[in-house]
Amino acid sequence: MAGTDRRKAYAADHVDKGAPAVVLVRTQLGENIGAAARAMLNCGLADLRLVQPRDGWPNVKALGAASGADAVLSSTRVYGTVEEAVADLNVVHATTARPRELLKPELAPRESVAAMREAAQGGARLGLLFGPEKAGLKNEELVLADAIVRIPLNPAFASLNLAQAVLIMAYEWRLASGPLEDIEEPPPPTGSARPATKEEILHFFEHLEGALDERSFYPTPEMRPKMVQNMRTMFERISLTRQDVQTLRGVVRALTGEPPRRGPPPGSAD
Amino acid sequence: MAGTDRRKAYAADHVDKGAPAVVLVRTQLGENIGAAARAMLNCGLADLRLVQPRDGWPNVKALGAASGADAVLSSTRVYGTVEEAVADLNVVHATTARPRELLKPELAPRESVAAMREAAQGGARLGLLFGPEKAGLKNEELVLADAIVRIPLNPAFASLNLAQAVLIMAYEWRLASGPLEDIEEPPPPTGSARPATKEEILHFFEHLEGALDERSFYPTPEMRPKMVQNMRTMFERISLTRQDVQTLRGVVRALTGEPPRRGPPPGSAD
Repeated sequence: MAGTDRRKAYAADHVDKGAPAVVLVRTQLGENIGAAARAMLNCGLADLRLVQPRDGWPNVKALGAASGADAVLSSTRVYGTVEEAVADLNVVHATTARPRELLKPELAPRESVAAMREAAQGGARLGLLFGPEKAGLKNEELVLADAIVRIPLNPAFASLNLAQAVLIMAYEWRLASGPLEDIEEPPPPTGSARPATKEEILHFFEHLEGALDERSFYPTPEMRPKMVQNMRTMFERISLTRQDVQTLRGVVRALTGEPPRRGPPPGSAD
Repeated sequence: MAGTDRRKAYAADHVDKGAPAVVLVRTQLGENIGAAARAMLNCGLADLRLVQPRDGWPNVKALGAASGADAVLSSTRVYGTVEEAVADLNVVHATTARPRELLKPELAPRESVAAMREAAQGGARLGLLFGPEKAGLKNEELVLADAIVRIPLNPAFASLNLAQAVLIMAYEWRLASGPLEDIEEPPPPTGSARPATKEEILHFFEHLEGALDERSFYPTPEMRPKMVQNMRTMFERISLTRQDVQTLRGVVRALTGEPPRRGPPPGSAD
């Protein structure tokens, strides 16, 4: 018993705090959530986020499949939307087996991990999105991602179990980051040059789209979702910094004739 | 039904005949055998061999967990001993989480796969040994292996699910061996998805900056050059398509209340 407690305390310590959060969206099977948690902790990842898990949370089947990955399950958080789940993150990659026409970079797992590690060195907080077992992520959710991860598999049998997909990404992260013993805390992001959070970017989108709504930008209401998605995809491609978002919001305010925002002028302080 | 049959025939064709056989020794759970079969076929491996599976063979639970990996399950063979299972193979690596004192080379998964591929080029037939869920392989079984594979994991939580271990090895094999079929080149972008010309981008910049000039966007004239440069740099990072530029110009027109541009609606012609 004392041995188990010690092992759990050790496991909680041996967590890679700079590693990506794993965001499981509308997962159907508790077993898959548990197996994903186990695979995460196998590789030192511990930040698990659930968006609308079908059978609610907590889930006994998840607990069973997690095989003691308590350091993950005890801190798992549940969200109502993908937007909320990624709000505090800066760089998010989404796995999908289906080809989409979103004009997003498509990366192999190893490339994705390399790009995320580079972003983390600039202070970015990271996330990995995984859709439901059958349906995958919706386009409006994929739009939130900075890149799409495609796992190179047998084209004739490419449907990977959810926890297996989580494992491949976590394993690649572990390999690229070196042994857990060597991990150092990432420096806290500071300043206006830090990557924008997804929340900051979403506020900009809502600001812009609201202003366009008021000005009858969309030829027909039916065209609005597609046009909004195209605009969001375009801006997500930039890897916006906090300063970029401030600038863009200032541009929208200026163009629409809104009064400038109260507070210090852009770029004068953080 | 015809579609499913076609998919299965295609899957059977898309098998990597030089890939390692997977030998599962005294596996307890049928689910793990099925999940291993699925992971194998995900990566193009199809030669599954079972040594004394606890619940016999065939196993309905394995069938369920395999999610249609019939190309693997239909050819799975059962053996009484590890010696018999590996008799026709030339190079066998064994995975284990436990440190042993067997004076065998210990390889990471990627090193193991590289060594096996090299052996295969000399004509060797390959195999990977996986022990039972809890106990691992016996020493007299490990002795049959040419090398021990150690998957680098969280030292505080290193117990990997059996099918997950199979997946990591199969995935590394797939990566090292290249895609099962040549990936088709995406067609060159044409029309509105083609990259914008520098001229189109400059016209957008001038349009935006002119609109901002008219609306006193810049706090002081001295700040204008730096702010313009920052905005241009930001948009240059997007790799704008022609459609992006049209969208952005439409956005500026809408926000400033300019009348929509004359001409065909966006996207109707190139």
